[in-house]
Amino acid sequence: MDAAYAFPDAPVTHIGVRSLGDKESTPIDLSHHLSDMSNARIASPLKALMKYMAQPGMISMSGGLPHESYFPFEEISAQTAVPDTFSLTPEEKSSFSWLWNLFGAPTRKTKEVTIPKRAAGGDMEAVQLATALQYGQATGLPLLQKFINEFVQRVYRPINPLTTTLVHVGNTDGWAKAVLTLCNHGEGILVEEYTYPSAIASAWPIGVRPVPVKMDSEGMLANDLDHVLSGWDVEARGGMKKPHVMYTVPVGQNPCGTTMSEKRKKEIYAVCVKHDVIIVEDDPYYFLQCGTYVPKAQRTTAKVAKDGKDAEEAFIQSLAPSYLRVDYQGRVIRLDTFSKTIAPGSRLGFFTCNPMFAERLLRAGETSTQAPCGFGQALITSLLNGWGMSGWIRWLRGIRAQYTMRRDMCMDALYNHFDLREDLRASSIRAWDGAPVLVAHKKGAVAQEKYDSTTSLFSIVPPVAGMFLWIQVHVYNHPAYDDLVRSGMSESLASATLTFRLWKKLVDNKVLWSPGWFFATDGVQPDIGEMGFNPAVKAKGMEGCFRVAYSSASPEEMNKAMDVFAKQVVKFFE
Amino acid sequence: MDAAYAFPDAPVTHIGVRSLGDKESTPIDLSHHLSDMSNARIASPLKALMKYMAQPGMISMSGGLPHESYFPFEEISAQTAVPDTFSLTPEEKSSFSWLWNLFGAPTRKTKEVTIPKRAAGGDMEAVQLATALQYGQATGLPLLQKFINEFVQRVYRPINPLTTTLVHVGNTDGWAKAVLTLCNHGEGILVEEYTYPSAIASAWPIGVRPVPVKMDSEGMLANDLDHVLSGWDVEARGGMKKPHVMYTVPVGQNPCGTTMSEKRKKEIYAVCVKHDVIIVEDDPYYFLQCGTYVPKAQRTTAKVAKDGKDAEEAFIQSLAPSYLRVDYQGRVIRLDTFSKTIAPGSRLGFFTCNPMFAERLLRAGETSTQAPCGFGQALITSLLNGWGMSGWIRWLRGIRAQYTMRRDMCMDALYNHFDLREDLRASSIRAWDGAPVLVAHKKGAVAQEKYDSTTSLFSIVPPVAGMFLWIQVHVYNHPAYDDLVRSGMSESLASATLTFRLWKKLVDNKVLWSPGWFFATDGVQPDIGEMGFNPAVKAKGMEGCFRVAYSSASPEEMNKAMDVFAKQVVKFFE
Repeated sequence: MDAAYAFPDAPVTHIGVRSLGDKESTPIDLSHHLSDMSNARIASPLKALMKYMAQPGMISMSGGLPHESYFPFEEISAQTAVPDTFSLTPEEKSSFSWLWNLFGAPTRKTKEVTIPKRAAGGDMEAVQLATALQYGQATGLPLLQKFINEFVQRVYRPINPLTTTLVHVGNTDGWAKAVLTLCNHGEGILVEEYTYPSAIASAWPIGVRPVPVKMDSEGMLANDLDHVLSGWDVEARGGMKKPHVMYTVPVGQNPCGTTMSEKRKKEIYAVCVKHDVIIVEDDPYYFLQCGTYVPKAQRTTAKVAKDGKDAEEAFIQSLAPSYLRVDYQGRVIRLDTFSKTIAPGSRLGFFTCNPMFAERLLRAGETSTQAPCGFGQALITSLLNGWGMSGWIRWLRGIRAQYTMRRDMCMDALYNHFDLREDLRASSIRAWDGAPVLVAHKKGAVAQEKYDSTTSLFSIVPPVAGMFLWIQVHVYNHPAYDDLVRSGMSESLASATLTFRLWKKLVDNKVLWSPGWFFATDGVQPDIGEMGFNPAVKAKGMEGCFRVAYSSASPEEMNKAMDVFAKQVVKFFE
Repeated sequence: MDAAYAFPDAPVTHIGVRSLGDKESTPIDLSHHLSDMSNARIASPLKALMKYMAQPGMISMSGGLPHESYFPFEEISAQTAVPDTFSLTPEEKSSFSWLWNLFGAPTRKTKEVTIPKRAAGGDMEAVQLATALQYGQATGLPLLQKFINEFVQRVYRPINPLTTTLVHVGNTDGWAKAVLTLCNHGEGILVEEYTYPSAIASAWPIGVRPVPVKMDSEGMLANDLDHVLSGWDVEARGGMKKPHVMYTVPVGQNPCGTTMSEKRKKEIYAVCVKHDVIIVEDDPYYFLQCGTYVPKAQRTTAKVAKDGKDAEEAFIQSLAPSYLRVDYQGRVIRLDTFSKTIAPGSRLGFFTCNPMFAERLLRAGETSTQAPCGFGQALITSLLNGWGMSGWIRWLRGIRAQYTMRRDMCMDALYNHFDLREDLRASSIRAWDGAPVLVAHKKGAVAQEKYDSTTSLFSIVPPVAGMFLWIQVHVYNHPAYDDLVRSGMSESLASATLTFRLWKKLVDNKVLWSPGWFFATDGVQPDIGEMGFNPAVKAKGMEGCFRVAYSSASPEEMNKAMDVFAKQVVKFFE
């Protein structure tokens, strides 16, 4: 394939960001990473007609496009939220008002956006149903492309000037297309040792298996990545060749909640350069970066950030930089989605990557999803353009503040129910190495000094981003644990058995958490046992781990769930 | 795979149609048709939590769902057309009014549909943004499923009582998922000898190649299908094993416009039973069945059909039955789309097939597209439910009438410009065998008896369905043809060269038609030459064929285009 860095149809504006990094951008040819399937992708010959269709005065009778008068939608309008719907700090309004604000005031301030069938004055640039509901290029509406490109330039600031963007229908679709574009049957993908199971499920059917890399509290470890790749033994790996693709969730990692610094990203990137690995950066939680948790008693009144360019810039600077900031060779495919910042039902997101990958991903889109849904594109484009870039950034700041308050509310509840004590000794969860682990004991135990490592109940590291708490219950402190082991059970199976028991207790009491083994990447044997629980497999995440989402429950529900957990976990250990 | 006919999550209602056919429905196990990829598909373990989430009173903290208050859309509304927007015959209104009606009156009657964030009175069945914009099952909104199931039962009436439905994001997506579900690398798919090139492009990257079957004026020929399969020689076919999947467009075939009768479908189906072939029925033009073209001079005033159940039933009975009506074994996967009946930007359609295939296709959706876009689903579901089944059928009747008038307008224009004379001798286009072929001569030639087969300009069979005229210009009558052949060119290449010359003439005069070679299935060599034209390949469709879409041009444009064609084709032959 000699089309590296050529993007023949060129419907996507090249971003053309100047190099901002500390390393000159030196894009390289990475076309050897394309899968056989991707190399075999052809454009439909009908696409060749596009350039003729665009000629002024051309009467096109070439495509099976219905006339717009046959679209039974004359106009669509929406009551949309205003950018400053959510306050930036709890103090900005009374605590009552932020809850009220949070859970939907019936009279929330809205602004109407309207999408006509034809824009007034024949404005071809405007969002109109005649265009949005017609067949369109798989690159999506031009105004949406433009907004996305400006946003990427403003916020992520890729150091590779050739970086481009391309819409997809959500990160699940984006990742599925990336796997098919990069991986052949029988290959492995490098993943964090706990990861998002749907990502594994998307890669699995083409025979692509996860290759776990160890984590600490910042996520994937560069030295373990190097170790895995340097020592790759095809025979010992059952014939699997050395992986050349990584799947990573660097911010608010799912499930562990870890977030990577720029320094770590540079280290990982250097290992990827050394071993020629493509990084697929799945980053749905990027704008949910909440900062370090401070217990309620120590929290001081946060300064209310002002609006304006300086406040926007401060917000952008406060976010852990994307891999695009270190990607001087063009080996990063970033996945963004509107699922967490607008709504999951948007089914809309975008790739940011080099033009060679973008062109192959575009071909994949043309023969499957085509353009994203026109109703969704039109409404979201109108919303974003109505808000403008500043409005959109203000909205993201408000959403971040909401998740910060939710994280704090959950952690505060744990503080209310337990004695939490910082313990710098490494926990049994490697993913927490380097972070101050909070170890929980029964309320009052610390004051009475009635605690030691054998009486501890669980540990947690308060997340700095995302939607999830990752909790390890110390099942090895359970009174039955030693009996199980003495009876011949492996330590691993004893842990798993007790974990499953507690999970069921919570469910019986109407609290549903995700069991940790869902996120294990070693010993994955899907479709086995109740809830995917297979005690015969020594998988990570069985050792008392739970993922707890604080994204959607109401404050009352979250508090109630923590009450139930507190009662059940104490009872469990009795 | 022992899950044949089990559909574990069972979110889709089984249609439960009683057997209406002349053969008892006897569904058989067809799981041996699944591809390796499909057999390897796993459900994400997170799906296992769904049943717990649904328990009353359960506090779910298991999934990363954002709270609905974070969706910046409070309400969406649309001005929608009324079901009887389009008249059913030209006579129902004046000819002025149908054109006016056709090309968009600014004051077209509309009805407002509104989708709130939360439906009034907590009606969980109602379409609401809190549900539509949230993560949802890949089976789509329950009310949409319900409408689709009722529609399939009412109109297609599958004889297999186990038939079920499943949404997809348009037929391109549907076909792409079907190919991945059924075909392994290196297999062949049976197709009509001219077919939709994007369908080939979707199958191509996984190494699946078209196997053409001859056509007549009803589409694919049962005896040639049997001939191709009975005489399958793996070695002669370069190692390709005998195909077990068919792709067919049985109504308003793309590009030939042929439409299959029930009798032919039964014959084809019997061959598919004999050779164990799965039929993928891509049927976007099903409701654009216009009936036989009658020249303007002979057209009588059509009776205006009344509304009501009888008129609806008469409409349904007038349509060529779907393969679902003959599918007693469950070997049909039907693809429906809203692209031609609502709008292409809907990116919404549905499979109708046996539950075993539906379950595998659902798994494919879960790990790629997930649910179709919530904005589109909500708006289309509200439109359809607002109209009701009778309203939707009335809308389809109006759309059919519009395409009938468009087809007639184009054919009338050809009658104006040429002497068209029925010629029952088989043309060089096998796809027209059995139909009365109209052969065109210069205006006045027939009256002056100045015509014979060497002076004919082109032939056409007026389509009975769809969006396309398929025209064969008789390039072998061109004065240069014999010279080219005498100069050593093959007949095929001489034809192709002249066809390309005429196509360019039309484009230079601002009329864009699709060249016939786009739709060839033999000798496909994509990405070669200008406009995919590769004179070195003896491909069908090079012999003077053009596909002319009458779906979107205005009456003025269509007439102008036919003027240009008339002038250019006469000049071309001089």
